[in-house]
Amino acid sequence: MLPDMSSDVLTSLAEQARALDTQHVATDRRHAFELPDGVVYLDGNSLGALSRAAREATADAVSRQWGEQLIRAWNDSAWWSAPERVGDRIAGLVGAPAGTVVVGDSTTVSLYKAVHAAARMRPGRRVVLTDPDSFPTDVHVTRGVCDQLGLTLELLSPADAVARLRGSDDVALASYSQVDYRTGELWDLAALTVAAHDAGALSCWDLCHSAGVVDVGLTDGGADFAVGCGYKYLSGGPGAPAFIFVAPQHLDAFVNPILGWNGHATPFAMSPDHTPADGITRARVGTPPVLGIAALEGALTAYDGLSMADVRRRSLSLTAFFVDAIAALGVDLPVATPREDDRRGSQVSLRHPDAYAVVQALIARGVIGDFREPNIVRLGFAPLYLSHEDALAAAVHLRDVLAGREFERPEHRSRAAVT
Amino acid sequence: MLPDMSSDVLTSLAEQARALDTQHVATDRRHAFELPDGVVYLDGNSLGALSRAAREATADAVSRQWGEQLIRAWNDSAWWSAPERVGDRIAGLVGAPAGTVVVGDSTTVSLYKAVHAAARMRPGRRVVLTDPDSFPTDVHVTRGVCDQLGLTLELLSPADAVARLRGSDDVALASYSQVDYRTGELWDLAALTVAAHDAGALSCWDLCHSAGVVDVGLTDGGADFAVGCGYKYLSGGPGAPAFIFVAPQHLDAFVNPILGWNGHATPFAMSPDHTPADGITRARVGTPPVLGIAALEGALTAYDGLSMADVRRRSLSLTAFFVDAIAALGVDLPVATPREDDRRGSQVSLRHPDAYAVVQALIARGVIGDFREPNIVRLGFAPLYLSHEDALAAAVHLRDVLAGREFERPEHRSRAAVT
Repeated sequence: MLPDMSSDVLTSLAEQARALDTQHVATDRRHAFELPDGVVYLDGNSLGALSRAAREATADAVSRQWGEQLIRAWNDSAWWSAPERVGDRIAGLVGAPAGTVVVGDSTTVSLYKAVHAAARMRPGRRVVLTDPDSFPTDVHVTRGVCDQLGLTLELLSPADAVARLRGSDDVALASYSQVDYRTGELWDLAALTVAAHDAGALSCWDLCHSAGVVDVGLTDGGADFAVGCGYKYLSGGPGAPAFIFVAPQHLDAFVNPILGWNGHATPFAMSPDHTPADGITRARVGTPPVLGIAALEGALTAYDGLSMADVRRRSLSLTAFFVDAIAALGVDLPVATPREDDRRGSQVSLRHPDAYAVVQALIARGVIGDFREPNIVRLGFAPLYLSHEDALAAAVHLRDVLAGREFERPEHRSRAAVT
Repeated sequence: MLPDMSSDVLTSLAEQARALDTQHVATDRRHAFELPDGVVYLDGNSLGALSRAAREATADAVSRQWGEQLIRAWNDSAWWSAPERVGDRIAGLVGAPAGTVVVGDSTTVSLYKAVHAAARMRPGRRVVLTDPDSFPTDVHVTRGVCDQLGLTLELLSPADAVARLRGSDDVALASYSQVDYRTGELWDLAALTVAAHDAGALSCWDLCHSAGVVDVGLTDGGADFAVGCGYKYLSGGPGAPAFIFVAPQHLDAFVNPILGWNGHATPFAMSPDHTPADGITRARVGTPPVLGIAALEGALTAYDGLSMADVRRRSLSLTAFFVDAIAALGVDLPVATPREDDRRGSQVSLRHPDAYAVVQALIARGVIGDFREPNIVRLGFAPLYLSHEDALAAAVHLRDVLAGREFERPEHRSRAAVT
């Protein structure tokens, strides 16, 4: 997988990579995934790789459960309780207790439910804070909720939000991403949550780029609400169901803005009156996407026997080593991702004026990352299936793309329909 | 598959069944489905059967597209445009033009979007009408929207709604199911829509029990909005994505209550300002459930080469023959489903004080239907994979369950977790 490496620098880096891989062997789950040969996959923060367990779980859900059990699978294969069962599994990865997480709708719909419910829990307060640099859907959905509820959206960075909250009494909710999707910066969930609580506000966290790679610490950080994505680091498959977390103390007061039969206390009584279910089940809406949940449930078995602390250590080692390696190889692009461990998610973002073409040139070499506006080469390090040797291979390919000015080739500059 | 049939009545019915199956052979798609041996599956109105095409499409989406193409599949396998592509396919089945239907969220979330958007298109009007006998999620979600928008929900049967609308000027929206999920009664979409329009109101239709079996006629009937289910007669798999229809004249004014990046005009520009996409794409919200859409897209190929008029004729023939057959066999349960063709969906519902146990006894004999509160034995006839011989087999088993009082057996009376 590594390109030809003859120099002393490369020899030394390769030794370091092997030593680090040995040191982190206990968290190596590469064997559980079915990555194509010749690919270094650095886009697990956009679409996590397929695992054998996810493939088998989906095939079983289709052929045996759906095909043979048919309608009986709702009981016989426990489809009905799958949203809570898989939610509990995710709860264990994000530092939340059982019974506080449920999977089902898309991330955006989940965030709509969380933000809408949270904002209404602080009547009289008119302001919702969110990050202008959040993934756009977060800004869109939060602005939409504010318009519906007659609230004011203020766009502030996490740092500015802490200052804004200090001494204020008009903020209902601070809704933030734990990791910036572009730069990979990890924000301090506990500190911003404390600032919100000190001002009488609630907090909601988007864990799309932290769940499965960071010690999220929802309970320890005092988070009130959270949502996250099933198809990034959790590797649940394309468009996998998202999850929503509601802290135990808010479950009784949580009012789902989308009242559906799956969130009902007695769904099969078929009553036209809506009595919300106890606990996190009230955050459910419609019939769950069973095939997507099956893939996600299979994928999550890759975490069996691992502690998030160890996964986090591996992740930090991979990204730190990659940054060191490109520096040693003479790649002098600005690194948008913080170097401090406690400020870094599981990606390395580099700035380049031709970032789109750089990414395409890397893809042509089998190193799959992605481009983000305006100038970001984004390389995600899904720790379970990437090694330090992979990181070094990516670094060498990047050096060669830049040295050979491959990003100037016309075929790397033409934009695909979806980037 | 047929039980022993020695009497003249049975011999005659069997001849009729064979003759009708010959008459409708052009719409027989049994070979496309993978039903277990020994099962007469009369629950395709709850969970449609698995087809080979759905199984293969899902396996391809998992192993080749996700596993090998990875993130590139958004372009290379056209995942991004799948919601509109599959929506167009469904549009052809429900009498709607291309570009008016999109798939993605659950039925409940889809109905939330439709009802919320529709109700806001008639400012100043304070009343929304819906059917107290709709599937409960329809009542829940509509009541929830009314509470959020300060509107009044009035629960009226479709017939009473027509009377309520006459001469009124306060109704914003009439939201109804085309087919009653319990009785199988088919309501007159065009007549109720005309009544709504005459009163200056809009109409929204739930097609869960009509899409794929009834000539829905959205355009002909003048429907403004509609939603429907992917996992019933369309056989898209458990929890398959639902669809939403917005009539062409409403597309520009449609305001999605859940503003997400997939409904944005330029989602990859990553702008924090939300500019809705043109056309039905603005009804999208978050990342689509790709695996569920793949299964649904595969399943819809079962309709290739068929006209909905022919499918409808087969459906009506199956249900009419079943009702005739049970009468001829001496089953004297009240039939809740109208006998007139233009008032009947694709199911036959029978009333029995021990309906739950009757259904369990039928299931024990391989005839899978379902129970609905309070006393309904609900038998759905998915026309593509059921024959008149199947209908006769079910009728004979029902006769024998009743004659042998099998519904009194303890094992048939204990309730499962999910019914």
